[in-house]
Amino acid sequence: MRKSASNGIVQNGHKLMRQPVCTSKIEQSPCAENTLNPIRRLVDQLVINPNPDKNLLRLSIGDPSVFGNFNPPPQVLKAVSDNLATTCYGYVPAHGLVSTREAIAKYYNTRSSPLTSSDIYVTSGCSDALRIVMDCLGSEKRNILLPRPGFSLYETVAGNRGIPIKFYDLDPENDWEINLNQLDSLIDENTAAILVTNPSNPCGSAFSVQHQLDILAVAEKHGLPIIADEIYKDMVFEGESKSFGELSENVPVLSCGGLAKRWLVPGWRVGWIIVHDRHNRLSEVRGGLTRLCQVIIGSNVLIQGAVPQILETVPQSFYDDTLKRLKNASEIVYSELKDCPQIRPFKPKGAMYMMVQIKIEEFEDITDDMVFVEKLITEQSVFPLPANIFGIPNYVRLVLTVPEDILREACQRIVEFCQHHSVRVPRKKAKLTAS
Amino acid sequence: MRKSASNGIVQNGHKLMRQPVCTSKIEQSPCAENTLNPIRRLVDQLVINPNPDKNLLRLSIGDPSVFGNFNPPPQVLKAVSDNLATTCYGYVPAHGLVSTREAIAKYYNTRSSPLTSSDIYVTSGCSDALRIVMDCLGSEKRNILLPRPGFSLYETVAGNRGIPIKFYDLDPENDWEINLNQLDSLIDENTAAILVTNPSNPCGSAFSVQHQLDILAVAEKHGLPIIADEIYKDMVFEGESKSFGELSENVPVLSCGGLAKRWLVPGWRVGWIIVHDRHNRLSEVRGGLTRLCQVIIGSNVLIQGAVPQILETVPQSFYDDTLKRLKNASEIVYSELKDCPQIRPFKPKGAMYMMVQIKIEEFEDITDDMVFVEKLITEQSVFPLPANIFGIPNYVRLVLTVPEDILREACQRIVEFCQHHSVRVPRKKAKLTAS
Ligand SMILES: Cc1ncc(COP(=O)(O)O)c(C=O)c1O
Ligand SMILES: Cc1ncc(COP(=O)(O)O)c(C=O)c1O
Repeated sequence: MRKSASNGIVQNGHKLMRQPVCTSKIEQSPCAENTLNPIRRLVDQLVINPNPDKNLLRLSIGDPSVFGNFNPPPQVLKAVSDNLATTCYGYVPAHGLVSTREAIAKYYNTRSSPLTSSDIYVTSGCSDALRIVMDCLGSEKRNILLPRPGFSLYETVAGNRGIPIKFYDLDPENDWEINLNQLDSLIDENTAAILVTNPSNPCGSAFSVQHQLDILAVAEKHGLPIIADEIYKDMVFEGESKSFGELSENVPVLSCGGLAKRWLVPGWRVGWIIVHDRHNRLSEVRGGLTRLCQVIIGSNVLIQGAVPQILETVPQSFYDDTLKRLKNASEIVYSELKDCPQIRPFKPKGAMYMMVQIKIEEFEDITDDMVFVEKLITEQSVFPLPANIFGIPNYVRLVLTVPEDILREACQRIVEFCQHHSVRVPRKKAKLTAS
Repeated sequence: MRKSASNGIVQNGHKLMRQPVCTSKIEQSPCAENTLNPIRRLVDQLVINPNPDKNLLRLSIGDPSVFGNFNPPPQVLKAVSDNLATTCYGYVPAHGLVSTREAIAKYYNTRSSPLTSSDIYVTSGCSDALRIVMDCLGSEKRNILLPRPGFSLYETVAGNRGIPIKFYDLDPENDWEINLNQLDSLIDENTAAILVTNPSNPCGSAFSVQHQLDILAVAEKHGLPIIADEIYKDMVFEGESKSFGELSENVPVLSCGGLAKRWLVPGWRVGWIIVHDRHNRLSEVRGGLTRLCQVIIGSNVLIQGAVPQILETVPQSFYDDTLKRLKNASEIVYSELKDCPQIRPFKPKGAMYMMVQIKIEEFEDITDDMVFVEKLITEQSVFPLPANIFGIPNYVRLVLTVPEDILREACQRIVEFCQHHSVRVPRKKAKLTAS
């Protein structure tokens, strides 16, 4: 019935003749083609040639674990090793273990927005949470509003799914608050959701409660849900950090968070979606979230299983200490840079970043933030991220989880660099070049 | 400039009036709606009312960790706890640590298909690998061919992305081989890839090398790549397990695998894509895979970082022992069921499943596999999966990672159940009912 020959196959009498070897390229799908990561694209374009006489100081990566000075507390490691010792190798519900969901619900529960385990979806990092929420609300016909400057993953997800996006601006002169008029005017009948990031990457800003209420009012006016990227929740240097969910009376809020930043384990890939929905408007969406979680079957059980113990045992002093050190770092950078006439640092209120404006007109030969960063690397071996990546030109973003001495050194090199390239001091520049 | 009032917001002179509370439902996207998991849908429909006098024997879940008799070897746990002790908390490249990719490349390297780290993409489980590969090749205009019966996740992914699918049949009378004529005839100019599963869930089959070559010849005739779900690679009871990649001369193969089954840690979510591409036809696709990995930033670093040590230290005896026990389990089930005239067990050659045909005409009151399973649960508290879920009617799938005594007990109850419902023995049935 079946027989193979060197030049063909015969099965059930059907003969396949051997063809010349096909060497034509296989195409990727439009989805793959449109899945763009602005950071990668830009970093790939950047010419990175550090000065060989100076060690490279990287202030570019939003990963607190890079320098070894911000480590997860021992309770986090103990929770995981305890969990490794008990048998937990198997599949769990795709949207998370009940015990993990219960623990997250309890942790973020507030009187104004009570939560139960059924409001929680455990995901493979906050990125996966954002992907699932954006996929569940947006579509090729339904746009999502994004902050500018904003975290670049939102664009990656939107590109992947073909979701049209519109940007609303954050105002650097006004604590990076949202321009609400513009936000309001951008909303159309095909808008699916407003995405907000608070505290913000890259701005290091944290909204006042009043501003959060104002944003909620815009969403409410249009009957829209809010996607709140709250991965930096509770990471504000002064005062309280309120979630959009707890402040919302009538607006459904899908909050995305995770262990990455506050617990300093970004590589461990445990995130979550918290659904705040007092008027039960998201019943269908919840079904969608559940099904979308089933595609990759969620986050690894070893670490998600440790979440209850982590949330219970990490002492408040650990969180306080992290914030104190981040604030201290921001003060160092601010005071080092504030008197440099070519740049303008913006004091952060939270998260772990600081934006610095580049006053292009003050420079002799620097035309934008990309050139600034390229030359800064080539001459001073200091590497901040050009904020172009985040949608705003002529800023750079500095990461604050860097050890104090490196931060100081980096700031001093930045100041020297600015002096060297200033329009104001040609003589000084000539001297520096000669020396 | 900005002011809030209880009945509206004023910012920059723009006034938002408070509206009546919006209570209309928020819609999910078509993508969320179409992300269907056939297992969930079917299990949700099943009436599960076990007999309260008999303990429920679950032979339904393809999770070797459920009963505690198939545990990962100590070397796997040691590799993770060693890795936990060294600092590894941070982000790593979205498609995986270089050391992990090198270790996987080395492990699966063959003379006929040499691999380097750049051929490997680490993912959040094999499910994520399949999602990324299917998303990268398929699209709303480019269909993918799937096995029937087959693992249900393929349909979930296709639904999520709107990829049209066509099913080719596996022939139970011929060792679950592919009907190659049909496969050949299903391919059209919009076909993006042929997906094959070997060894197979749910069939427990493992193709002969000749059959693999024949499948490759069909792909080659049409210039198509193969997506090989090889999560059960090396899990064959007799003889060698060859990957499609090592057998392929001219057909690009994207092989999906992971730690889940062979290393018995499905909950740990580490998978991989291995690209075999001797004629460099996938250069564009590789770019797409890289970018698709960047959406959720890959698999957790704690476990993926342990992969090199796992691959190096787990002794061959562990793999051999697992296979011996799976084979033994299959022989027990086969010999317990083979003489039961109402059903027909199919001896598996690999993986961890066994298919059992239900001869509907031999039953008095059983109309299909769904009814069979529902009644079997209600009367005998035995729960196999109706193979309807996998696209084939009137089979059930038994899981073989169940302890011997439970397997025997389950088989005996199945036989009793079959006798009880047989068309042939009304007298016996009456007796049984009376007793
Ligand atoms: C605003 C924001 N959201 C989400 C993420 C991603 O978090 P995760 O690592 O948990 O995916 C980041 C990471 O930098 C971030 O800055
Ligand atoms: C054929 C097949 N592929 C893929 C998977 C999923 O593997 P993972 O748990 O690594 O996502 C399974 C799980 O049962 C399977 O049977």
